[in-house]
Amino acid sequence: MIKETKFDIKNERNLTMLVDFYELTMANGYLNNDVGNKIAYFDMFFRRVPDKGGYCIMAGVQQLIDYLSCIKFTDEDIKYLESKNCFSEDFIEYLRNFEFSCDVWAIPEGNPVFPGEPLVIVKGPIIQAQFVETMILLTVNHQTLIATKSNRICRSAENRPVMEFGSRRAQGYDGAIYGARAAVIGGCSATACTIAEEMFGIPAVGTMAHSWIQLFENEYKSFEAWAKTFPDNCVLLIDTYNVLKSGLPNAIKVFDEVLIPMGYRPKGVRIDSGDITYLSKEVRRILDEAGYADVKIVASNSLDEYIIKDVLRQGAQIDSFGVGERLITAKSEPVFGGVYKLVAVEEDNGEITPKIKISENAEKITNPGFKKIYRIFDKKSDKAIADLITLNDEVLDEDSPLEIFHPVYTWKKRKIKNFYAKELLVKIFHKGKPVYTSPNVMSIKKFAEEQLETLWPEVLRLENPHHYYVDLSRKLWDLKHNLLNKYNDSFEE
Amino acid sequence: MIKETKFDIKNERNLTMLVDFYELTMANGYLNNDVGNKIAYFDMFFRRVPDKGGYCIMAGVQQLIDYLSCIKFTDEDIKYLESKNCFSEDFIEYLRNFEFSCDVWAIPEGNPVFPGEPLVIVKGPIIQAQFVETMILLTVNHQTLIATKSNRICRSAENRPVMEFGSRRAQGYDGAIYGARAAVIGGCSATACTIAEEMFGIPAVGTMAHSWIQLFENEYKSFEAWAKTFPDNCVLLIDTYNVLKSGLPNAIKVFDEVLIPMGYRPKGVRIDSGDITYLSKEVRRILDEAGYADVKIVASNSLDEYIIKDVLRQGAQIDSFGVGERLITAKSEPVFGGVYKLVAVEEDNGEITPKIKISENAEKITNPGFKKIYRIFDKKSDKAIADLITLNDEVLDEDSPLEIFHPVYTWKKRKIKNFYAKELLVKIFHKGKPVYTSPNVMSIKKFAEEQLETLWPEVLRLENPHHYYVDLSRKLWDLKHNLLNKYNDSFEE
Repeated sequence: MIKETKFDIKNERNLTMLVDFYELTMANGYLNNDVGNKIAYFDMFFRRVPDKGGYCIMAGVQQLIDYLSCIKFTDEDIKYLESKNCFSEDFIEYLRNFEFSCDVWAIPEGNPVFPGEPLVIVKGPIIQAQFVETMILLTVNHQTLIATKSNRICRSAENRPVMEFGSRRAQGYDGAIYGARAAVIGGCSATACTIAEEMFGIPAVGTMAHSWIQLFENEYKSFEAWAKTFPDNCVLLIDTYNVLKSGLPNAIKVFDEVLIPMGYRPKGVRIDSGDITYLSKEVRRILDEAGYADVKIVASNSLDEYIIKDVLRQGAQIDSFGVGERLITAKSEPVFGGVYKLVAVEEDNGEITPKIKISENAEKITNPGFKKIYRIFDKKSDKAIADLITLNDEVLDEDSPLEIFHPVYTWKKRKIKNFYAKELLVKIFHKGKPVYTSPNVMSIKKFAEEQLETLWPEVLRLENPHHYYVDLSRKLWDLKHNLLNKYNDSFEE
Repeated sequence: MIKETKFDIKNERNLTMLVDFYELTMANGYLNNDVGNKIAYFDMFFRRVPDKGGYCIMAGVQQLIDYLSCIKFTDEDIKYLESKNCFSEDFIEYLRNFEFSCDVWAIPEGNPVFPGEPLVIVKGPIIQAQFVETMILLTVNHQTLIATKSNRICRSAENRPVMEFGSRRAQGYDGAIYGARAAVIGGCSATACTIAEEMFGIPAVGTMAHSWIQLFENEYKSFEAWAKTFPDNCVLLIDTYNVLKSGLPNAIKVFDEVLIPMGYRPKGVRIDSGDITYLSKEVRRILDEAGYADVKIVASNSLDEYIIKDVLRQGAQIDSFGVGERLITAKSEPVFGGVYKLVAVEEDNGEITPKIKISENAEKITNPGFKKIYRIFDKKSDKAIADLITLNDEVLDEDSPLEIFHPVYTWKKRKIKNFYAKELLVKIFHKGKPVYTSPNVMSIKKFAEEQLETLWPEVLRLENPHHYYVDLSRKLWDLKHNLLNKYNDSFEE
């Protein structure tokens, strides 16, 4: 019944023109200066984990594949571009016959990822590799942001199910749809976003709003009507008028008088306002006394990882959480700062020339060259010890001890023995053709859980996590520092 | 060349299933309880202006019309819904033949709007009026959030052009596309989002990224290549290596040696990192000395209204701003908390019964009844004095003095004479058919500017603005308090 993709971008939505205008002016410039087909290497990476967390959860690769699979300028697009009167005829002709031919690598969805390592690498004619910048960033930035936030919230709930409820406050339609997808990758058990189930096979759930209760003559009658309509999934919203004086007594009355006689057990009650710590304890006590110890308490109302942690610490009796606006917008830090930087070009003789961006801000300096990433695991514990970024042609010898350096305090180093290494990046496009499909979302969610098991608990901490090592190989380190020195020397007075 | 709408939702994208699952379970419940066709009234309104501002800018009405015009459940949708095994056959049949028949009112885009007043009103069979909740909220919440943020940022720039540069950090594709639309409604002069020009006719702009500079042998050669390619719109990015030691000298050299000899004046330089206050002053001085007093300075790099205000106060010499992630995500407050509440139902005899939601949180109490809004203007100054929410059947007598009350401190009241009133809500759907089209985006932008002229400067302040009065008519006030008293009495011990 459920398909992986409903709005297959290929068939229903062409996002080719969702591109920063400067990608087009630059592309035109490359072509006109006879460098359009020069092979360039770009890295997409981020510099900082949101909310001072220890890691992010990679997401968005499937949508990136969908986009890259069908870049196409329609006649309408061409007409519009011509109307701008700033593009050369050659360039317009190039776009008319555009055929994507890049190689692309990405870290598969669900992997924990860290600052400084390339999440996506694009190799291809600069005119193309430049053009895809906007959509690569937009796609991976958005879904990685939400998957990461969702993972924080789910961790704070300590194995209680968390449902994504945020569509109405999302930033645009795709914010809701792909946000729900990313939220499930990050750990949510379900979503209220119906179309997300239809598209991605993630469970959609929901019961009633306050309007249901208001529509009927009184609260009791509204609960009665609900119980009769959905006897096998009866979750009642009990805060429309007054939780303890009206909502809960009416719910119990309907459980007693309507649902039990029909032969069903009630499923739960939901609280969407008020002090959920106090209310949930009272509701639990009263439900238990009434013989409904099996009835679950669901709480919602502007929750996030900070509030959930706090109410649980205070003993709130909540069995599952509905989380809306603060998850779907990653409210505490709603920007994922992924960037896309030129790191190398291929000369006519096939040699790769590394490139570096210096910038006035030291932390904006890039890692040059065509690279790959190894995740280093301890053989005994199977825990991840560090990620190692190397040049693409380096081979890691698993049989020799490996020396790794703290990325900032390089005098902090340690030798690792008894390790094994896993390459993180997989090829997703070969010469412009897709060669990889993301697993379905529920499998990615499971994969993410398994990968997080490989991280030390200290890295998983919500606050003040241990800094996970992302190290550069000696060869890459030397290359970077030689380039830096070269540029600095050139500015000496 | 440019069309108003490219991805006409009608033809290319059906968002019917972008709905919270509980709208469907409730709709099913209404039908099964024989109340599906009861006429209900819902208000969409918000409770608080983001960033402690004085007002919001209404946006998103056109996309709301697009959505409501084409609600349709496809065979695929029906199959999916059947697979959930929780909906009745009657309900599935209802969806198969769904025909939207509601009346809808909205405040036109570009209007300043205030907490507590209905931005959208829906009247129709509860089963339908309930169903559209998710998309009404999602559409209006998102665009109003971004238009409001954009307006704050543009005000801080004090008439300097602001360009929207945020696509790569937006929350999903529509976050970028409709975000760009809303940003222009709020005041931005242009966007980097190409597709937004194609769809909405708002100007798309852009020049070069750091990768352009890095690709060439050196910075001078990259500038030279650019100047030769785009001599009539030459804006150079001067911070790739070092603004004052490399970028600016190379730019001036290319202006002198390449552009001027070709017969063109340079347009500008852009700074994207470093201390833009200090750098812009130095760059201005050096450009002026070199005979380029007409060359503009563009600044970008994580700007928002707070930073712009600050750098201008410190004398930064910046002619226009590019604003990215903090605008497109409304970073400082990324959630617009619009809600959608049942406010009345029609009885079989046609009488309207007002409904109220009490809630444990006092500020969540709703205004009951079918209402309209007047904006009251002072005849002499043409300034807006207050908004007055009345019941729909009330007639405002412009010839008698009007007494208005402070919405919270009701003992604060004043009598207004010499006023005229304008109704804010317009009908956008009549019996399910669209009867209104939003003007094009550039006209809405102009309309918003004109409307802001009617607000007192005290209301326009970025911080600690004067509280604009949104008052209830005496009749509405009495109705609300009678309902409140009735509920409170019923909970007395």
